[in-house]
Amino acid sequence: MKINPAYKLLVVSTSTIHGSEFLAYIKQDFVEFIQSDELLFVPFARPSGISFDGYTAKVQDALRDRGITVRGLHEFHNMKKAIQDAKAIFIGGGNTFLLLKTLYELDLVQQLRVQVAKGIPYVGTSAGSNLTGLTIGTTNDMPIVYPPSFDALGFLPFNINPHYLDPDPNSTHKGETRETRIQEFHQINPQPVIGLREGSWLHVNEGNIELKGNLTARLFKAGFEPEELAPGLINF
Amino acid sequence: MKINPAYKLLVVSTSTIHGSEFLAYIKQDFVEFIQSDELLFVPFARPSGISFDGYTAKVQDALRDRGITVRGLHEFHNMKKAIQDAKAIFIGGGNTFLLLKTLYELDLVQQLRVQVAKGIPYVGTSAGSNLTGLTIGTTNDMPIVYPPSFDALGFLPFNINPHYLDPDPNSTHKGETRETRIQEFHQINPQPVIGLREGSWLHVNEGNIELKGNLTARLFKAGFEPEELAPGLINF
Repeated sequence: MKINPAYKLLVVSTSTIHGSEFLAYIKQDFVEFIQSDELLFVPFARPSGISFDGYTAKVQDALRDRGITVRGLHEFHNMKKAIQDAKAIFIGGGNTFLLLKTLYELDLVQQLRVQVAKGIPYVGTSAGSNLTGLTIGTTNDMPIVYPPSFDALGFLPFNINPHYLDPDPNSTHKGETRETRIQEFHQINPQPVIGLREGSWLHVNEGNIELKGNLTARLFKAGFEPEELAPGLINF
Repeated sequence: MKINPAYKLLVVSTSTIHGSEFLAYIKQDFVEFIQSDELLFVPFARPSGISFDGYTAKVQDALRDRGITVRGLHEFHNMKKAIQDAKAIFIGGGNTFLLLKTLYELDLVQQLRVQVAKGIPYVGTSAGSNLTGLTIGTTNDMPIVYPPSFDALGFLPFNINPHYLDPDPNSTHKGETRETRIQEFHQINPQPVIGLREGSWLHVNEGNIELKGNLTARLFKAGFEPEELAPGLINF
């Protein structure tokens, strides 16, 4: 897997783990990663319909004790320029379809690609992590709106499945398991998929991908049995 | 809710319930409903990537003991005519995005609407049930392909969520529950959603909607608390 060595990415399964505050478990790495006291936050995924202001305030509250000032992208009249001027970018979770549709409608997709290719640090959680892959074809979200394309930001030559869940051996439910869904994805699409369990994240830097957190991640490649990736540098 | 009195629909949450063979639990109602020994089966949702022939054979195997002959829509050179000639139509489950994209690409959406409006019995399971609603915006499936629209067949003036799952009070998972997802849907979309648990189905006939099976269904209306619908005639 060749990754553009300019990319600095933190691709996070979830903003919040059980029994812990919003961003708390990842905060130390997050702050070290962005190397800036200014953060541009993209609130467009709107989890549970929270307002853009409310979602931005939640991020500001979580990072205030580290002296980081958070501005929401929606606050800017000229959003393209806000992205051009950003020292670090964070796209939060929520609904991936809504997030991507909004970015396309505001014509911000290309600007995000340009800035991240210049080495501006990018953090994504959940829906924001889906966007780092080739497409949103492995999101878990409901298609509550119709985006003009499923093409994502495409920093990574594979897809992300955040909040990855192992099949429950005791389940009597007949809806597809996550693994079955990803195997159906591979009936149609060639790119690998990394299932990131809650508490895991990828740190991409200088062309390397490091799996962080204490858990393994699950790698799905079309035509192969899934495999577990150990924390540390990954190569596939 | 006004329903076209010509419509004859069986809107089934799942083809298979735990501990039971494909279609077994619903077979008696299915056979009485279609009132025909000929069935046109639409296999395009391709669960787990099964072939069209394989999926059609599975339906034929399940219904052979009732003397029903099953033909797959893919077997016909002129698929529009096959729909026009059908005595009863069954659209099976799998991936809703793949199903709808295929129907649009083959230009069969309008023909299905025309035939069902003439009173041809229509059975849908899972993805095939999603299609009876206004849009596929409440599917549980992964968006493995990009359809030209999320508009479904629109027989019903609401949306279906098949395989409806109640939140697990013991879960530590931070991905959205089904209820949260549907509430996010209602941030954007006005139509009600009926969550059909596995083992439930709607029987639509003469403009009435009857909830069948032993379970209640969950009704979501934008701006209201969800409510439980008891088996029997429903009105909302």
